[in-house]
This record gives sequence, structure tokens and C-alpha cells, in this order.
Amino acid sequence: MDYDDNWLEPDEIAQLRRRLPIAYVNAVPVQLGDSGAPERVGLLLRTMAEGTLGREIVGGRVRFHEPLRRALTRHCEKDLGPLALPLLPPSLTPFHVAEYFPTEGESKFFDPRQHAIALCYIVPVQGECTPRQDALSLDWLTPAEALRRETLSELSHGQQHIVKAALAHLGLLP
Amino acid sequence: MDYDDNWLEPDEIAQLRRRLPIAYVNAVPVQLGDSGAPERVGLLLRTMAEGTLGREIVGGRVRFHEPLRRALTRHCEKDLGPLALPLLPPSLTPFHVAEYFPTEGESKFFDPRQHAIALCYIVPVQGECTPRQDALSLDWLTPAEALRRETLSELSHGQQHIVKAALAHLGLLP
Amino acid sequence: MDYDDNWLEPDEIAQLRRRLPIAYVNAVPVQLGDSGAPERVGLLLRTMAEGTLGREIVGGRVRFHEPLRRALTRHCEKDLGPLALPLLPPSLTPFHVAEYFPTEGESKFFDPRQHAIALCYIVPVQGECTPRQDALSLDWLTPAEALRRETLSELSHGQQHIVKAALAHLGLLP
Amino acid sequence: MDYDDNWLEPDEIAQLRRRLPIAYVNAVPVQLGDSGAPERVGLLLRTMAEGTLGREIVGGRVRFHEPLRRALTRHCEKDLGPLALPLLPPSLTPFHVAEYFPTEGESKFFDPRQHAIALCYIVPVQGECTPRQDALSLDWLTPAEALRRETLSELSHGQQHIVKAALAHLGLLP
Repeated sequence: MDYDDNWLEPDEIAQLRRRLPIAYVNAVPVQLGDSGAPERVGLLLRTMAEGTLGREIVGGRVRFHEPLRRALTRHCEKDLGPLALPLLPPSLTPFHVAEYFPTEGESKFFDPRQHAIALCYIVPVQGECTPRQDALSLDWLTPAEALRRETLSELSHGQQHIVKAALAHLGLLP
Repeated sequence: MDYDDNWLEPDEIAQLRRRLPIAYVNAVPVQLGDSGAPERVGLLLRTMAEGTLGREIVGGRVRFHEPLRRALTRHCEKDLGPLALPLLPPSLTPFHVAEYFPTEGESKFFDPRQHAIALCYIVPVQGECTPRQDALSLDWLTPAEALRRETLSELSHGQQHIVKAALAHLGLLP
Repeated sequence: MDYDDNWLEPDEIAQLRRRLPIAYVNAVPVQLGDSGAPERVGLLLRTMAEGTLGREIVGGRVRFHEPLRRALTRHCEKDLGPLALPLLPPSLTPFHVAEYFPTEGESKFFDPRQHAIALCYIVPVQGECTPRQDALSLDWLTPAEALRRETLSELSHGQQHIVKAALAHLGLLP
Repeated sequence: MDYDDNWLEPDEIAQLRRRLPIAYVNAVPVQLGDSGAPERVGLLLRTMAEGTLGREIVGGRVRFHEPLRRALTRHCEKDLGPLALPLLPPSLTPFHVAEYFPTEGESKFFDPRQHAIALCYIVPVQGECTPRQDALSLDWLTPAEALRRETLSELSHGQQHIVKAALAHLGLLP
């Protein structure tokens, strides 16, 4: 039985986003140093829905009948390209959960399209990233660079809080 | 704005369960001893859909626009009664994630109705549990009792794996 | 067999601190709101070794043959008083590990006396705190107050990083 | 400043093991399948102190002034050989903590030599393992094989509980 054709039409999914919490995965790509310690985080630079430039972490929806590991693999490949060699975590227990609400102020995360519940993972990347689709680049930033007010303000939907939580979890928060 | 009336009709939700992964919370109730260490886990005895008796842990669907903490509170109250005084964890990072698929063998968790992604929590209970709805009782079992072959076989949907994972996380697996 | 008399003389322990990593527990006290969500963190105001005022979180050494849960209970009682009613986590898996080194710059944590490895926990407090020993007060701060530059600079040994990691873990980092 | 020469003489360390909890790291090696999901765990076969054969997971003491990551790297190399290519976790928050006591029955972990507090990690291994020192082999076992009564009984010091906790954390407990 093949569920890959379980596509939802754009207006069908748009409608569902107003009826149910949508299951998401989010991944913070990290680069490791020689000792294996994480040193940099990867942020996508992307043309946003409203036409402006903005930053994002990796992620997207989990499809019907799609295991979390496959969803995470698919979104890493979609956002980082086929040669990124992401190292998915052996356990699928997330380090954080982000709740995006369609109304502002309900939580730190806001997504006008939907209520989404995102399981957040840290994904070390060993290969070459070649962002695809509408992403212009993937930039590797030191913790200090990622936390500059300017960079944080470019992150949309409140994702700066996932970046901060990842850096805290990794012991990299200045 | 009140989202509590965002009810889905039974056949509408039945249909959605075939289109999207459904966000769930699962909670393993535990009783603490004098030192604060967990000693027993609580399992609901319930009349199952097919009319037989079966065991379950606490849980259910997250509604549209409902925060995880509120969903967890609501399901604890629904399953344990209003006097259970559950101690929700300060962080909403789950200790485990269970993926229920509508086809057997895809994972350890099977739910013929749906693909559900359940964030799993351990919830110490301080008060009196008075199971409601279709639950007949809540039984507090020692780890050894919970892991008896007979008890495990009464758990449905693969939830014995959540009980085992909880006991392992708590250092209580024999 | 009673290990409570397994005291180490002050100069003996001072010497050991130069020979071996010392096992520590650290606890960040939190106050919960009505919904059970954490709202404030507790910081001790204390006269430091050098005579100045400084802030600290709860914690201390694990003794020989002392279980982690008992060490955590003992230090909570020592620092918060006997009526604090701390809710120790059901699992002893820490949310963070802090490595204090006796040389500056080796990590974010610095303790001139010793190399210490501290398992860090979040401990909701339900009762009244009456700091004892050399602690002058325990102050409950909102996340914004705890993260004020002035407050952070009063924390010693790098413990501001444990406070930040706790707030990130709780989803409270602004 | 080089702390690698901070060796303790055998009888000095034997004495310290009776005075203080000793900081340890433990690692459960895992082999990943094509999808990145863990499939097998590695157990060392070793001649034990008492001359019999027994099984162990990777691990050992953290030295004075040694960061946890370096201790974990050192013990992986010591136990798995220089070509194992272990993938240390990006975060040093352990998935479990094991408390070994020198008296039986105090916890699930027993080590007649010492009170040790071991931070436990899961370490995917990508290369070739060539056990060194007194280890005879490293055997890769499926979860079912690792949990056979015979295999579990070969694990010493209660380490079967770390193996079970690792399998539970990975969602691999049958």
C-alpha cells in the first residue's frame, strides 16, 4: 500500500489547517567541530510568502501514514539538498516542542495559517548543503552571530525561540 | 475568542483521521512514595470499542487551538476525575513519542481508526482518582505487576510500550 | 550501615577537589501558576566566600553512598528551608549537565575550588521558602527579571547559564 | 597546562572510591540501518576481574579536569578501537543516569569497588570496532538477542538496566 500519493489538494489542506492541529517536524542543522562538539547552526535564507526575505529552520508537515523519521529525512533533503548527509538522532524524542497558534500572543510561536505542533530536533550535518526550492542560501552562524538582534528579527513565526532553545540544550547560549 | 466550541462532528473527525496525522497526548499516571520516588503506575480498566475489557493509559486528542498543557489537563480530568490533583510536568518536552499507525506492523503502535502522533508524559498524581465515562477503575500497579504478561496483554494499541518506556525512564524496569 | 557519618574533614575535601571531579546536583526552583505552567524562578541571595553579595541556585555535593534523590532533597531543604515542599522530578535524568572547571575559559562554568560535574534539575516549589544558613533571601523572579543584565551578573560560577538553560527548557526564554 | 598526567596511583584511586562518588560515563554503542534508525546494540565480551567471562557496555571514569566529551571520546576509543568512528551526541545531556553503589540492593546498579554516578549516552558507531585491552570481542545484537535472559545475565554491575533503558529510549524494547 502506497501512501505517498496521499496528497491533499492545496485548498483542502488550507481548510484542514483551520480544523485540527497539524503535526510538524522542525530541525536545527548544526555543524560539528573536530571534537564532535557543535559549533555553528544553519539558518535558511528564504523568500517569504509576503515577498520579503526571511530566515527559517528546516521543517514541514508530517504526512498521513508517514513515520516521523521519514518526515524528518524528507524535510532535511528538501531544505538542505541531497548531499547534506544529515545525522538524524537515534531517538525520536524531541529536545523541544513548539506550539504555533494562528492567533498572536497565545504562545511564542505564531503562524497565521494554522495551529501546528512541531517536534524539534537537532541535526548535525556532515555534507554539503545546497538549498533547494525557494531557499536562497543556508548560512552557518556561530552562536553569537545567530543571536544578533538583526538575525533573530529575520526569523519568522517565532522560530528564534527554537534556535535559542537548541543553543541552550547544546550548552552554547552565551 | 472561544475555541472550545470548535467541535468536529463524529463523521467529520472520522474522515479527518484518514487524511492527516492526529495530534495526541498520552499520560502515564504515577504514585510517588514518601521520598518522592515513583512507586506505582496507574492503568485504566475500560470497556473497549469491541465490548471486551481492556487497559489504557490516560490520553486523547489535542483540539484545534488548544495548548498542550490544557489538553493534558483536560484528559487527566476526563480519565482520572476532578480530584486527582495531577502534577503536570513543568516542561512540555515529552519523555517519549508514540506513533500509532492504522496498519499493523508499521510501528509498535496500532490504531485502526487513525494515524496519531502522541506526546507521552509522566504525571504524578496526588489526589483521589475517580475514573469517569466508560472507565471502570484505575488500578495502581507496582512495576512487576504492570509488566506481568497478563496485564501487558490487556493494554491495547501497543500502549504496553509506553508503560515500559515510562518505567525505563523512571529507572523502575526490573 | 550508616553512611551519614561519612563526613570528610574540610582540608581533606579541599584536597580531593583537586584530584577528582566532584559530583554535584543543582536545582532551579520554579513557581507554578494556576494552570501548572512555570512562571517564576527562585534565586538565592547569599553572602559569597569573598564577602560580597551574590546570587546562586540551589545545590551542593553528593556524598559518598548518597542517592541522587536524597542529595537533591537535602540541598533543597538546606537552601529553601523545611517548609518549601519541593516537587522533585519523578525521573532523575537531568535536563542539563554543568561542568565547572577550576581554570577559567575551559567551559562556561568556573569554580576556583574544584572540577565539579553538576546534574541540573528543575524543582517546582509549592510551600514557603525560608532560606537558611548564609542565604539572606530567596527571590522569585519573572523570566524577564531573571535575565536582566544586572541579575545575571550577580550569579556566580557561570550559573546564569543554568538559569538560561532552564528557562529555555521551560519555553520561557524571551 | 596538561592534566593528562593527573594520574592517580592504583591504591590512591582505590581509596578515593571509598570516600566520594566517582564520576563516570557509560555509552551504549548502536548500529544504524539505512534509514538512520538504530537496529543493533554493541556489547563487549570481556574477561572480568574474577576471571570469568562477562559482558559490558563502554565506559569509565572521568578524570580530573577532563571534559565529559573528551572522557566519552577516550573511553569509546579505548573500548572500540581507533577506527570505530563513534558519533557522540551533540548535547551532553544524558538519556539516563546510573547510580552504582558498593552495597547490593541500594539501587539496580552494584559495584563492590565504589559509589559511581554514570551519565549514560547512546553512541552510533559508523566504523570498524576492534576492541582493545582485555575485551575479547564486541558483538552486535538485535534488541531481541540483547534481551535474552542468557545475555542479560552476562552483563555485570546491573548494566542490563542501562541496555534496557537505551532500548526503551530508542523505541526498540519488544
